[in-house]
Amino acid sequence: MSEIVNPTHAPQRVNSVNTLEWHPNNQGSGELLLIDQILLPHHFEMVRCRNYQEVGEAIRTMKVRGAPAIGVTAAYGMALAALESVSSEVVQLLAELREAGSFLNATRPTAVNLAWAVSRSLEAAQEWAKEGHSVPGISGKLLELAKKIHEDDVAANRAMGAFGAALINDGDNILTHCNAGALATAGYGTAVGVIRAAHEAGKRIHVWVDETRPYLQGARLTAWELQQQGIPLTLITDNMAGHLMYRGKVQFIVTGADRIASNGDTANKIGTYSLSVLAKENNIPFYIAAPLSTIDLNIPDGEAIPIEERSTDEVTIIAGKRIAPEGVKAAHPAFDVTPARYIHGIITERGIARPPYQESIRALFSINSKED
Amino acid sequence: MSEIVNPTHAPQRVNSVNTLEWHPNNQGSGELLLIDQILLPHHFEMVRCRNYQEVGEAIRTMKVRGAPAIGVTAAYGMALAALESVSSEVVQLLAELREAGSFLNATRPTAVNLAWAVSRSLEAAQEWAKEGHSVPGISGKLLELAKKIHEDDVAANRAMGAFGAALINDGDNILTHCNAGALATAGYGTAVGVIRAAHEAGKRIHVWVDETRPYLQGARLTAWELQQQGIPLTLITDNMAGHLMYRGKVQFIVTGADRIASNGDTANKIGTYSLSVLAKENNIPFYIAAPLSTIDLNIPDGEAIPIEERSTDEVTIIAGKRIAPEGVKAAHPAFDVTPARYIHGIITERGIARPPYQESIRALFSINSKED
Repeated sequence: MSEIVNPTHAPQRVNSVNTLEWHPNNQGSGELLLIDQILLPHHFEMVRCRNYQEVGEAIRTMKVRGAPAIGVTAAYGMALAALESVSSEVVQLLAELREAGSFLNATRPTAVNLAWAVSRSLEAAQEWAKEGHSVPGISGKLLELAKKIHEDDVAANRAMGAFGAALINDGDNILTHCNAGALATAGYGTAVGVIRAAHEAGKRIHVWVDETRPYLQGARLTAWELQQQGIPLTLITDNMAGHLMYRGKVQFIVTGADRIASNGDTANKIGTYSLSVLAKENNIPFYIAAPLSTIDLNIPDGEAIPIEERSTDEVTIIAGKRIAPEGVKAAHPAFDVTPARYIHGIITERGIARPPYQESIRALFSINSKED
Repeated sequence: MSEIVNPTHAPQRVNSVNTLEWHPNNQGSGELLLIDQILLPHHFEMVRCRNYQEVGEAIRTMKVRGAPAIGVTAAYGMALAALESVSSEVVQLLAELREAGSFLNATRPTAVNLAWAVSRSLEAAQEWAKEGHSVPGISGKLLELAKKIHEDDVAANRAMGAFGAALINDGDNILTHCNAGALATAGYGTAVGVIRAAHEAGKRIHVWVDETRPYLQGARLTAWELQQQGIPLTLITDNMAGHLMYRGKVQFIVTGADRIASNGDTANKIGTYSLSVLAKENNIPFYIAAPLSTIDLNIPDGEAIPIEERSTDEVTIIAGKRIAPEGVKAAHPAFDVTPARYIHGIITERGIARPPYQESIRALFSINSKED
């Protein structure tokens, strides 16, 4: 991941660039290229991951971020763990894959797509081992699985876009938080995908983009994506959103999700909970857009979702400059949980779940989708 | 205001420094020294204002900020307009004072203390003219009036502190927004004054300090003041406040105010409205601390309060570094209005106004205070 590929100071159009790309090599393996999202919007660079450790490091340092994108990235990480293995024994390969899975899982605790992709890869490898496949056979099949997870994510985004766009009216001012766009996924976006689909359907919309402190994903990434897609936007600080709602300047709110409990409680970027409360108080529809891979059926409610605490330097230092006095303590919970009661609907690739979510989510999982 | 006095890179203790100081000269006039709050917490410098234009410029550029502080500053500005006048005729002096008042009023539209101090000075000058006072006589009396407004503000802060501290329990976690501290006033602080008074009374408290984007008054100024006063604090981004309230980690909220309508609707730093809604949803008491000079009896409700729109560069550029892509539009309403129904009480120097505010505010104004 150390090496930088194709550095340029003139950011390319995100539409023509993929958040992550698999580049095969001549030895039957390959490398994963990722847009370095820390450098956006000022510099466009791709980083190269040649083994699962480099993949994990890219996730941990947020070079790649966004729950669906880190899920797809982790699937390639598992494939790289197998492809780069020197094991000749399948039993040994499986042990190495479990180790790689633990390593990847430890990089970010909140987004469930990461754990989902890791366990899907591990379970598949165990199945293939039982069926008698060799080490190269299992490795090749893990790469195919990563590519399928990758393609499925793009397809899921498009489907979410179509379902969600129908909720948006011509002339709406839409508020979004953090970046749930093409950069947060394998392409197109979840919440931003819904906004894009409405725009592509010819609806005249305008987007309020929360800057999303401390990491500024809104100001840096969502503003950049919308600007390139020609969708009118206005950047605001997070604390302006409530004022705009109260003044009647917001008609629709949509954000992504990092993990959704089986009752609909949703973990997403810090600040999402506040938006949902302000939306309720001002009678504004508040939606989540996320693929089914973000839903964790193993946990009953939001209390069980682990909330990642990140470095407080991300709060006290902005763009390399300390803003608070030396020695001041800060807090940095990276996510919060929005209780299901504040959520009007969860837009998925199989349709929109409505309250009560326990039933509607189970119903969506039982649909036999074409892709699966 | 161009000249810098006493520059030092080791910030002094704010307790031993005054937000504003009058320094007389040998010609019967003088100059107003202000802490340059743009440079805090990294550099401590005082700027020198030798005429009302320099005073107005210091207010406009937010070298001095906070509604009570700019009220006191404006009173010295009016005194300087008279002291620096070359008029020999009282009629001409009054015309110049009206011009100076218009100039000062135009620098910041939301904080009513500014207009209050200007009109108090103008009306007094007119009265003294009627009584037959000369130009030097009126000028000297305007300086005395500014000093009285200055002293009254400090006394009002102390009184607010005593009233407000009684609302705070031992062990409380208190949330505050922006800077309503010693730096926002002639000394001690309004909202931070309440917190200081609770701390001085021996209550074990901890303060969550909202960083307060875009201008970061919380991270730069409130964190600095509390740190120097030895009051335990944790800095957070604005969008973390709701999460902490939901998790039961906030027991009391207090902010300052820039203008309070006669029905209790309160304009304060952008983000205050959101905190009040989140407080209501989580059953947390939400208080305003402000002197009576912040209450505008001439306006019926918050709809009539002008909201200042400041430069959007303050949103897109942090600490000299652009955070959003070039060409992205931003918004910057500097204040919002919190409807009276979200406010548990307004802590003033004459006691705490409770809903319904129309009556309780009128009752406070009719008290014959010792200071008046």
